[in-house]
Amino acid sequence: MKIGDKHYRSLWWDHSQQVLQIIDQRRLPYEFQIQNVESLQDYLDAIFQMRVRGAPLIGATAAYGIAHAMSQDPSDNNLQRAWDALYATRPTAVNLRWALDRCRQVMANTPEAERADVSLNLAHNIADEDVGINKSIGEHGLTLIRDIASRKNDGEPVNVLTHCNAGWLATVDWGTATSPMYHAHDANIPVHIWVDETRPRNQGALTAWELGNHGVPHTYITDNAGGHLMQHGQVDLVITGTDRTTSRGDVCNKIGTYLKALAAFDNNVPFYVALPSPTIDWTLSDGVAEIPIEERAEKETTHIQGTNSSGSVDTVRVTPECTPGGNPAFDVTPNRLVTGLITERGICEASAIGLAKMFPEFAKAT
Amino acid sequence: MKIGDKHYRSLWWDHSQQVLQIIDQRRLPYEFQIQNVESLQDYLDAIFQMRVRGAPLIGATAAYGIAHAMSQDPSDNNLQRAWDALYATRPTAVNLRWALDRCRQVMANTPEAERADVSLNLAHNIADEDVGINKSIGEHGLTLIRDIASRKNDGEPVNVLTHCNAGWLATVDWGTATSPMYHAHDANIPVHIWVDETRPRNQGALTAWELGNHGVPHTYITDNAGGHLMQHGQVDLVITGTDRTTSRGDVCNKIGTYLKALAAFDNNVPFYVALPSPTIDWTLSDGVAEIPIEERAEKETTHIQGTNSSGSVDTVRVTPECTPGGNPAFDVTPNRLVTGLITERGICEASAIGLAKMFPEFAKAT
Repeated sequence: MKIGDKHYRSLWWDHSQQVLQIIDQRRLPYEFQIQNVESLQDYLDAIFQMRVRGAPLIGATAAYGIAHAMSQDPSDNNLQRAWDALYATRPTAVNLRWALDRCRQVMANTPEAERADVSLNLAHNIADEDVGINKSIGEHGLTLIRDIASRKNDGEPVNVLTHCNAGWLATVDWGTATSPMYHAHDANIPVHIWVDETRPRNQGALTAWELGNHGVPHTYITDNAGGHLMQHGQVDLVITGTDRTTSRGDVCNKIGTYLKALAAFDNNVPFYVALPSPTIDWTLSDGVAEIPIEERAEKETTHIQGTNSSGSVDTVRVTPECTPGGNPAFDVTPNRLVTGLITERGICEASAIGLAKMFPEFAKAT
Repeated sequence: MKIGDKHYRSLWWDHSQQVLQIIDQRRLPYEFQIQNVESLQDYLDAIFQMRVRGAPLIGATAAYGIAHAMSQDPSDNNLQRAWDALYATRPTAVNLRWALDRCRQVMANTPEAERADVSLNLAHNIADEDVGINKSIGEHGLTLIRDIASRKNDGEPVNVLTHCNAGWLATVDWGTATSPMYHAHDANIPVHIWVDETRPRNQGALTAWELGNHGVPHTYITDNAGGHLMQHGQVDLVITGTDRTTSRGDVCNKIGTYLKALAAFDNNVPFYVALPSPTIDWTLSDGVAEIPIEERAEKETTHIQGTNSSGSVDTVRVTPECTPGGNPAFDVTPNRLVTGLITERGICEASAIGLAKMFPEFAKAT
């Protein structure tokens, strides 16, 4: 999407340097910095340190990681070594595994001498496919926003709440949850986005940065505020992303999503989840029982990063010195709280039947 | 409660200086600083700037503010001037009005020459009464914790989640929501407290500071985490405070309380609200419809205070520079989500009947 007047993707292949370029998202929203990813360690760091983040972007980055490994040493051994190392960086992200498995499968049918070229083209394809998927998600989600807008007075914005950053920065372009918002804005439908700050890592600041750069009206709120806004009719629609969706439509997303879903349900606000189909884990059904939740460093809860009064990025400690912090990074929203799933093929019910109808070829396979 | 080995209240009268002393809570949890409150402007600042905070403590501070005004000029005019100025500092806090009205009523029956002494004694009484009320709340709430503990294995802690700081710092002593926790800890019942950080002002850091100083085991979590913990059986009980409770038991408390109540309800976790009866506004019934919600400065959402790496208190901006912030400070939890109210007279249902049975003299009057 746009930064100022220029269009960017969140990663791209620099053909002159023959190297992947990414936006270092840890420096956002304070500083816009482009980085080269040159070694396997760079790839591992990029994912593990969350320079790139978001399920689809992690998947595409990992595919380029395999391509890099193949350019160095196209042996089966090295393929497995790269697969293992890349997989270990963020085990919760199902797209990561999906992309890695796809690369490994293609490599299995490719002679070693061709693996470097084939894997690089495959990474390009995975990136382009993601853009296509997110564009489709946006077109389908747009119908929901258009429908609400049609019941409003002229010029009155559709208020959409979102949690975390399922924006274009978390994908290759468009974003998942944000794609319907960008599509609506670009179609001159007035929208206003309530952006949850999304503690502990404040990814809402990234969403605010994105929306601001693309010119979409928005307001940054604490994660505590959404319930109150819904009680008072100030939210027309919730759209979030998901890191992992089960075959029956339970949604594992950034911690706190479940609380917003409860509030939406309690106030009859439609709660939609935007997802590219690679995010669906067809092997799982009951998300609360079956999905292991990553516990991240406690420092993320006790310390917060921002820019200080002299403009430098700094970290402050919010708590007393010896306060222990707990930091589950995701939660699961049961399908009963989800109004619908916005996929690249259309909108379906968050249920085993809804998903099976939309993706019969995958549902049958399990 | 204890700070190290010494027992403190959150305000006290210094008889030698004839002045009120408070703990400047804006400097907590980084710095423990005692301040003199000497002029009416000091009193207004103390409340408005949240050097003192929490409904009961605001009420007691305001009573001392009236006493100060009476010591300067005991006329009716000055009484009204002080009443107006003090009331305007935090209009949501019903205790503030309750304390001010009580002082005005007593002054009306007191000759001017005696007003300084009478109002000072009245302020002492209001402070002592608050301590007594909170002690009673703790004793009643203790029965809930003791009951849960009796169903656990020996040594296994009772996990209590709390939101904001309804601790001793927010009252004169004991706190409201924390009083059952301190009583349980002091009675050697093992408890572990999940402390919501409570954005935007991170009052959870105060709760953590209190609990740590008194030796109560606890873990600081983001406001997003509680739902997930409840889904996984890691919360036995929620206890929060309230700034204002309606006659049918709707609870207006720090923004985000409603989300925790929804999660507790969805997971069959008992959700109790601890309240001194002066917090009940008998003139209101439907809290969502009738209670105006204070919108505070947007900077509270976009900036966060803490200590930086060199140990100084600093504020960092989390968002991009031009991001607008929304900051509703409270929300209302409807009585249907509240398991019970812990009052100084005992535990009752969160309903008009429950409250009327517990406080027949007030319920009748409206």
